[in-house]
Amino acid sequence: MSKLKRNERIGAIVKILCDSPNKVFTLNYFTLIFDSAKSTISEDLVIVKKIMEELSLGKVVTIAGASGGAKYVPMMGREEKHALIEQICEDIKKPERVMPGKYLYMADILYNPVYTKGIGDIFAEKFSEDHTKVDYVLTIETKGIPIAMMTARGLNVPLVIARHENKVTEGSKISINYISGSTGSLQTMYISKKAIKKDSNVLIVDDFMKAGGSAKGMTQLVQEMDCKVAGICVLFDTTVPSQKLVDKYISLIKYEGIDTNDEILVHPNYEYL
Amino acid sequence: MSKLKRNERIGAIVKILCDSPNKVFTLNYFTLIFDSAKSTISEDLVIVKKIMEELSLGKVVTIAGASGGAKYVPMMGREEKHALIEQICEDIKKPERVMPGKYLYMADILYNPVYTKGIGDIFAEKFSEDHTKVDYVLTIETKGIPIAMMTARGLNVPLVIARHENKVTEGSKISINYISGSTGSLQTMYISKKAIKKDSNVLIVDDFMKAGGSAKGMTQLVQEMDCKVAGICVLFDTTVPSQKLVDKYISLIKYEGIDTNDEILVHPNYEYL
Repeated sequence: MSKLKRNERIGAIVKILCDSPNKVFTLNYFTLIFDSAKSTISEDLVIVKKIMEELSLGKVVTIAGASGGAKYVPMMGREEKHALIEQICEDIKKPERVMPGKYLYMADILYNPVYTKGIGDIFAEKFSEDHTKVDYVLTIETKGIPIAMMTARGLNVPLVIARHENKVTEGSKISINYISGSTGSLQTMYISKKAIKKDSNVLIVDDFMKAGGSAKGMTQLVQEMDCKVAGICVLFDTTVPSQKLVDKYISLIKYEGIDTNDEILVHPNYEYL
Repeated sequence: MSKLKRNERIGAIVKILCDSPNKVFTLNYFTLIFDSAKSTISEDLVIVKKIMEELSLGKVVTIAGASGGAKYVPMMGREEKHALIEQICEDIKKPERVMPGKYLYMADILYNPVYTKGIGDIFAEKFSEDHTKVDYVLTIETKGIPIAMMTARGLNVPLVIARHENKVTEGSKISINYISGSTGSLQTMYISKKAIKKDSNVLIVDDFMKAGGSAKGMTQLVQEMDCKVAGICVLFDTTVPSQKLVDKYISLIKYEGIDTNDEILVHPNYEYL
């Protein structure tokens, strides 16, 4: 390969950094790939940082010192976040979503690759600061998995999935019983003992919160593993009951229910956007 | 914002394209963002295309004509694919993965954000050509979801998740019964009728294939919805039984089992790498 020009190096650096959010790449790494001096790469990184910020495409953090380098942190502009969540709300409002029993069909939204990527980036951004160091993202199967996966990817940490059944392939487990807020029934969640190391910080991510039973259950699982909850993030929560089983959580969308005209009442939760 | 220089535009174009794989961005889109002429943007795209190819960072396809533009298609170099799958195989070989009953603990691999992104890109690359147009990615809960999600993201199509239980939130469903190859038990899978439109091409993605019961079940679901199977992709399959219940599928890793010394026999399936 012939030696690259500055604009070619910049294109490549952007691709490499953004492909691996929250992973530090050393100056050495780039000097080897591009056969260029450290000072040249440092100048490239200044330009990359500037583009990202000016166009609200994310944040590039440069780390000084011998083991220094740079990493990309997902970060959306406020307008872009609002646009994404407003678009999701409009999508939720479609009347054909109302199922018998006034349930809402939401699977297509929760599994949409563009939405889930955006939601994962919003959650990852909030927990990318060093003082909220996250070691794992935890969710409970099934519907929250895509969002949780994208959050884990944004943070560059492993995803852990709690199961509703005791699976032989996952070895010995810790389990807790909890009351599901949506159905009122007693359920069990299991987590493999191998999944999470002691003394870790765990971010809980789920699609939906009604009473908070699942989030409380996952909180208990985290505590049983001698770990701490770094935070709780859900895509949407219900206004009723207003008192949840967990104290603090982040929700991007407020769901008020379906009114007598079958209209779906939902709006962005700007507090966290 | 002041007018950007070429190297700044190039950095931004790379970010925008790679953030949305398989989505076409028009020249107009970029001329508006950058306040630049079409000819300038066209030249930028030539440079972006070249960097991607030279450094095996993916492929940029330019589309000519009035509605023309460019899109990013995930594409890994052969060496990089080999390195990723070899690394996963080394990881699988760790003796502590062997669970009672000779099951392998694999959850951490299947939920690893770096692995799943790479696997999803490999699958997406294979089905990004127009003659294999994919409309949906289908998986069955739970362990294959992260890989399937990343494949759907690489292809820019919706993910659909078949369930083991009939959930009220998903409206009316199609269900089929199948024999699970791993447990030999009769199971049911459900899919919401709203999830997939008639006459679509569906790519089936799963983590693991033994006899092929799940893949065959999903094939039947796809046919019941008057759709076609575009392909079947699994991360790994077993050498025994050699005859599977489905004819054609792609598997990236061959698993031969655990030998009498508790050694895990696994190797990359270079045929598809």
